[in-house]
Amino acid sequence: MNHKIILVSLATVILGFSTLVAHAEDPLLSWNDGPAKQAILEFVKTTTTEGSPQFVPSEARIATFDQDGTLWVEHPMYTQVTYCLERVPALVKEKPELKNKEPFKTVLSGNREAIAKLSTDQLVEILGATLSGMSVDEFSSEAKTWLSEAKDPRWKRPYTELTYQPMQELLRYLRANGYKTYIVTGGGQDFVRVYANQTYGIRPEEVVGTAGETKFGYDKNGKPFLTKEPKLLLNDNGVGKPEGIYLMIGRRPFAAFGNSTGDRQMLEYTKAGDGARLAMLVLHDDAEREYAYGPAQGLPDTKVGTFTQALYDEAKKNGWTVISMKNDWKTIFPFENK
Amino acid sequence: MNHKIILVSLATVILGFSTLVAHAEDPLLSWNDGPAKQAILEFVKTTTTEGSPQFVPSEARIATFDQDGTLWVEHPMYTQVTYCLERVPALVKEKPELKNKEPFKTVLSGNREAIAKLSTDQLVEILGATLSGMSVDEFSSEAKTWLSEAKDPRWKRPYTELTYQPMQELLRYLRANGYKTYIVTGGGQDFVRVYANQTYGIRPEEVVGTAGETKFGYDKNGKPFLTKEPKLLLNDNGVGKPEGIYLMIGRRPFAAFGNSTGDRQMLEYTKAGDGARLAMLVLHDDAEREYAYGPAQGLPDTKVGTFTQALYDEAKKNGWTVISMKNDWKTIFPFENK
Repeated sequence: MNHKIILVSLATVILGFSTLVAHAEDPLLSWNDGPAKQAILEFVKTTTTEGSPQFVPSEARIATFDQDGTLWVEHPMYTQVTYCLERVPALVKEKPELKNKEPFKTVLSGNREAIAKLSTDQLVEILGATLSGMSVDEFSSEAKTWLSEAKDPRWKRPYTELTYQPMQELLRYLRANGYKTYIVTGGGQDFVRVYANQTYGIRPEEVVGTAGETKFGYDKNGKPFLTKEPKLLLNDNGVGKPEGIYLMIGRRPFAAFGNSTGDRQMLEYTKAGDGARLAMLVLHDDAEREYAYGPAQGLPDTKVGTFTQALYDEAKKNGWTVISMKNDWKTIFPFENK
Repeated sequence: MNHKIILVSLATVILGFSTLVAHAEDPLLSWNDGPAKQAILEFVKTTTTEGSPQFVPSEARIATFDQDGTLWVEHPMYTQVTYCLERVPALVKEKPELKNKEPFKTVLSGNREAIAKLSTDQLVEILGATLSGMSVDEFSSEAKTWLSEAKDPRWKRPYTELTYQPMQELLRYLRANGYKTYIVTGGGQDFVRVYANQTYGIRPEEVVGTAGETKFGYDKNGKPFLTKEPKLLLNDNGVGKPEGIYLMIGRRPFAAFGNSTGDRQMLEYTKAGDGARLAMLVLHDDAEREYAYGPAQGLPDTKVGTFTQALYDEAKKNGWTVISMKNDWKTIFPFENK
């Protein structure tokens, strides 16, 4: 080996090593430098450094995350709503009397325009009918199968791949610093629990969501099982988020993350605690790499994930940090790095 | 120092050391050798030894414990009922219209015999009135104060000292082997959460109990808070135990511990899972060191903690282990060792 080759090799090793060091040093690689990234780093430093006046003991470190639009894509339709719509044919097979009854008839027609026009009440009826009446194990197994087969029409990938890389890094970074990370979602608790561990490293008991009642009973062999009932127990949206947090976690988070008016009360509740509290809102302002909707900052108003200008103003007034997907995120999806 | 002294010192050191080794080797020191202790050791070994056909991965290791009568004394009255009765004077001060109204009038009279005769409906009315109408923080602070002052009339000690030493060892032993330990109680979730961490090392989110609704709102300064509402959300007893476990934990326990018919469905649900499952019932058969009541095995029937002969028979038939306080427990309370 001549000297030149040795030098080049050495340079490669050193450069490689520097890259490794840079990786090791930056837990938020997919975040651009800016106020959002800074707010996270500062919060973690101030709450986890012993002797810091705002130090938080490890057993009190709780961080809560909305899911749809905060951890993964929610447009053009919540994934769980897609699941329920696609489950209607199987439901009608079990209950043929629904075939000619609205709103099931419209769903069966496959007319996308008509389906998009279904009212909230009609959607709730579809959700209630497709998410209840089976045992909890049957539900979980059906949802798992669907998730392994279904694909998002734009990216042609399983929905569970459409999580945001910067938020995945944030989850891992908080956990590495002793925070327990919870999902607090308006979506179905049972549905999210099916994939949360594999997708986010969040265990079933760390998912707080909209939940229906279950009913304990015995099958014909005397074996006990739980049936999903069509009765709402916890509507985990808006005021339901702090209420659900109190029910399931029993204490106030130190950090909370959302993206819509449904997360407002969770962020208010979090910020009302003593000491350092972090509240952040993801703003979908990147029509090219993901979607742009709001209507904060003049973005288009849509049916899902409404981020109003009033919420934006409240965030600015109360020291919440707005994350601009366009400016704060270097990468959107994990698969971009592959 | 002559030889005799040296020998005695050496013997002391050796004996001391042997005792230490014995402590280190036996995680269940307060348990007598017998089928109950054996069942626990065997269960932990078979579910945590890699390569064992019944090995359980650490993220699935869930153990649930009833509280009253299983982890601490429940006689002659559940601690929380005592708390509610003792809170009646303060309630009447706030709401003088209750002074001459039953059942509050009887409670205020201090007539123990009459109080003991209150019906279940009347007790529920007292519980509802004394456990709601305040903010969750006010409740928690009042309960904490009461627990630091109140004493059990028989042992003249704070209620939180009346936990069972063998069960404390069992909780620690399971946790040391990767199990998450939960309390699943018919008692109030909020009440138990106030002391569970300090008393058992069980955090608020690891307490599943009977829970009322809360309501999100703002105080006059615009600060958000939660109020305890007099509306039942989860009745965590009997069938409510597996339902509560599904709601809050989202999966089936591998081990469950109780002491009454209110724990029956939790144990059935646990045992219905695949692989090795441990189900145990504490039988209060030690009138001298604690209490004896049942009415399993001919013990006296009482108002609280009913362990029927039918439950005893179901346990024997289904391979649940009955723990005899009299025969299986060397020590009952932690303070006996001090």
